[in-house]
Amino acid sequence: MNAGVTDLPEAWLRNERDRLWAEFLELVRIPSVSAKPDHAAEVRRAAEWVAARCNRAGLGNVRILQEGGHPAVYGEWLGSEDAPTILVYAHFDVQPPEPLELWTTPPFEPTLREGRLYARGASDDKATLCISLAAIEAWLATTGRLPCNVKVFFEGEEETGSPSLGAILDRHGDLLRADLCLSADGGMLFPDRPDVSVSTRGICKLEVTLRTASKDMHSGSYGGAILNPLVAIVRLIASLHEPDGRVAVPGFYDGVRETTDEDRAELAAVPFDEAAWLAAVGAKAAWGEPSRSVLEKIWLRPTLEINGLWGGYQGDGSKTVLPCEAHAKITCRLVPGQDPKRVVEAVAAHLRAACPPEATIEIRPGGGGARAYEIARDHPALALVEDVLEGVYGVPCVRTRIGGTLPLCALFKERLGLDTVPMSFSTADEDFHAPNEFFRAASFDRGLVAWARVFQALAALPRR
Amino acid sequence: MNAGVTDLPEAWLRNERDRLWAEFLELVRIPSVSAKPDHAAEVRRAAEWVAARCNRAGLGNVRILQEGGHPAVYGEWLGSEDAPTILVYAHFDVQPPEPLELWTTPPFEPTLREGRLYARGASDDKATLCISLAAIEAWLATTGRLPCNVKVFFEGEEETGSPSLGAILDRHGDLLRADLCLSADGGMLFPDRPDVSVSTRGICKLEVTLRTASKDMHSGSYGGAILNPLVAIVRLIASLHEPDGRVAVPGFYDGVRETTDEDRAELAAVPFDEAAWLAAVGAKAAWGEPSRSVLEKIWLRPTLEINGLWGGYQGDGSKTVLPCEAHAKITCRLVPGQDPKRVVEAVAAHLRAACPPEATIEIRPGGGGARAYEIARDHPALALVEDVLEGVYGVPCVRTRIGGTLPLCALFKERLGLDTVPMSFSTADEDFHAPNEFFRAASFDRGLVAWARVFQALAALPRR
Repeated sequence: MNAGVTDLPEAWLRNERDRLWAEFLELVRIPSVSAKPDHAAEVRRAAEWVAARCNRAGLGNVRILQEGGHPAVYGEWLGSEDAPTILVYAHFDVQPPEPLELWTTPPFEPTLREGRLYARGASDDKATLCISLAAIEAWLATTGRLPCNVKVFFEGEEETGSPSLGAILDRHGDLLRADLCLSADGGMLFPDRPDVSVSTRGICKLEVTLRTASKDMHSGSYGGAILNPLVAIVRLIASLHEPDGRVAVPGFYDGVRETTDEDRAELAAVPFDEAAWLAAVGAKAAWGEPSRSVLEKIWLRPTLEINGLWGGYQGDGSKTVLPCEAHAKITCRLVPGQDPKRVVEAVAAHLRAACPPEATIEIRPGGGGARAYEIARDHPALALVEDVLEGVYGVPCVRTRIGGTLPLCALFKERLGLDTVPMSFSTADEDFHAPNEFFRAASFDRGLVAWARVFQALAALPRR
Repeated sequence: MNAGVTDLPEAWLRNERDRLWAEFLELVRIPSVSAKPDHAAEVRRAAEWVAARCNRAGLGNVRILQEGGHPAVYGEWLGSEDAPTILVYAHFDVQPPEPLELWTTPPFEPTLREGRLYARGASDDKATLCISLAAIEAWLATTGRLPCNVKVFFEGEEETGSPSLGAILDRHGDLLRADLCLSADGGMLFPDRPDVSVSTRGICKLEVTLRTASKDMHSGSYGGAILNPLVAIVRLIASLHEPDGRVAVPGFYDGVRETTDEDRAELAAVPFDEAAWLAAVGAKAAWGEPSRSVLEKIWLRPTLEINGLWGGYQGDGSKTVLPCEAHAKITCRLVPGQDPKRVVEAVAAHLRAACPPEATIEIRPGGGGARAYEIARDHPALALVEDVLEGVYGVPCVRTRIGGTLPLCALFKERLGLDTVPMSFSTADEDFHAPNEFFRAASFDRGLVAWARVFQALAALPRR
């Protein structure tokens, strides 16, 4: 990009830095936990705070969008007639902070220690939400305009799987039309080395209940002669994987594209330290599909995970119960080519076929399925964003992937035809979804510069 | 036995029946739940009630025995110098009544409906405890003596596995010396047909924890590349049984005697209705070791049961967690020839050998192990008791077995050399350990007659 074009907004951001940081802390203090019904007023308070912040940044047409779920916030600046339109996405809701006793300082009292701001939602993703608005304000305050048209869409229920996002897109699809979505949600792998994620995995869910009797029984009176549903469910669940870790469900891998040499070259460029990755979670060794690297397994391969399994007595001591039912919760991470509904059907068919005659099986598909998303390697936005990040960090940018699911990516693509590039300044180790979530203060400063520059860079994006 | 010898006590019991029933209800109203620490005073109150009742019945040397656990009650009448000594056993503690919402009437407000007295502990085993004391009182009140010497030993912690029974036997073994134990605890299979149990199974316990990491992980970031402990534990637990239901643990069946033709003839004499047995618990079909009948499986074969299994998320909806640990609780029912400690070691060795290299396994042996107990078929007490029961019921008595565990049987045999014959008037369908436990009023009357007669019959028992 032309040197000097972003000097004014960048200088403004340096001057305003303390105020911008203080505003970020204001937002972090609002306990906008979308999963808790009794926190709905706090989510609404966060929406109103964000809407007011949009107005202060200079955006127009600021509105609350709400379609049966938590409110979302929309705002726009559309003064660059021939320029592309960028839809900025973030969410202002946060994960529940529990277990509270594991926090060193209270989750909604942001505390700076050794360059890290500890608070629930600081990293995921209130910091980058605030950064994006600060960059918009910087342009409008210093030049009266933005290099491209900008719409912002901030939702309040991402942490519960965005249940009303589809309804909002149905109702407000025209309002949200754009040439690219730039997501403040996401995350980089390392604090000192930039990356851009080019895919997210999809997800589908199901829940299984096995019953072998109508009431719990005394193990001395019935054990050994009535099928124990725990014995039945361990066989069923064990049948879902091959001994070597591959998923054993017929049809599970249908449509999955095989990893290419180009994929492998991208993975090889990521400075991934497997030993450090294992040590961070206290694992002895990696596991899974043979002849595939860790990054391939978590980014490019679909998985079937047991998230919960239970039945019988879990309390202290022993209880000689022969339980009458057993339960499992299963999710699959999906890659491009897999349809969430068809995968649920394949897993359900496998489980039904494996159910022994002495048992009955009930399978409930979970809601909130999402397809995987992958941006084309030659999408012009990728190079533009990578160029900005390399300029800010001073080192080459690598292409990474997200093993988790950002449902908005597939939804925006399906409903709005919109591709998404994440540009979050969270780092993977910042314990989002866990106690003592933190955000690096240094990332705030890099983020401000990068977001100021990226609006200029994306002005060169071809319009759709 | 000589006709007419028991006429006086039997007539007395008929006359006193309403008072004896009212006394039984008094005991049932005491919520002597031994498992709940905050109910210790109620267990003590029950002990004091029982001790007072022993005194009223005419027993002497009535004492509370206590060795670190809940109190037990001892009493004796030793006036028949050359006659054998019978040790009457029962327990006055009860199972927790929870879940309370499933009770039609409150568990400690005994309520008579259609000939059934509903209350926690009514069937297990306060009714037969009261019957045994009533029969003793009947003899002493009408004849001033009993046909044999009688000691009573009533414990207050049977429902928690009799943790201090061993210590009581160590301290008071001489006091409890006798020629036979007649147990008011146990149960008959049918309400209108008598049986005598000739064996109880033993038990051993272990608890397993598998870990594959030191903290729970995000399934999108780690799933498929770190071993899920739920995937590991289902394989481990599935490996404990052969597909056909036999236990697959090497050494598990060591020492188990094979079912004989004599065993089979005894089983064949039991009027067991498999369809009704399955229907009572809502099971579709029987299961288990091939080529063995249900009665053989629950009475004569050892089993390995999973009483509890859990890990990960069990709440509403889904949580995309890759848990770091998984748990299982296991008990084995044992038959004569098996040693509880050796079986625990065999199961633990099997699980350790099957544990995958990515996981660590922790195995904790549970306390409260007990050996199986079996009385010799030609033990003279059996024929004497069977004769009494046939006289009371007017139909032949069958020999049955108890699939559950009465730890006292093996303990009395080991520590005191004492054989035990159960003579309980509970029926197997009376929902002990479950909501709406009840006891049949008709069984109270039969029990009074039978216990009055059995003291006369056992006077013929050879002394040890």
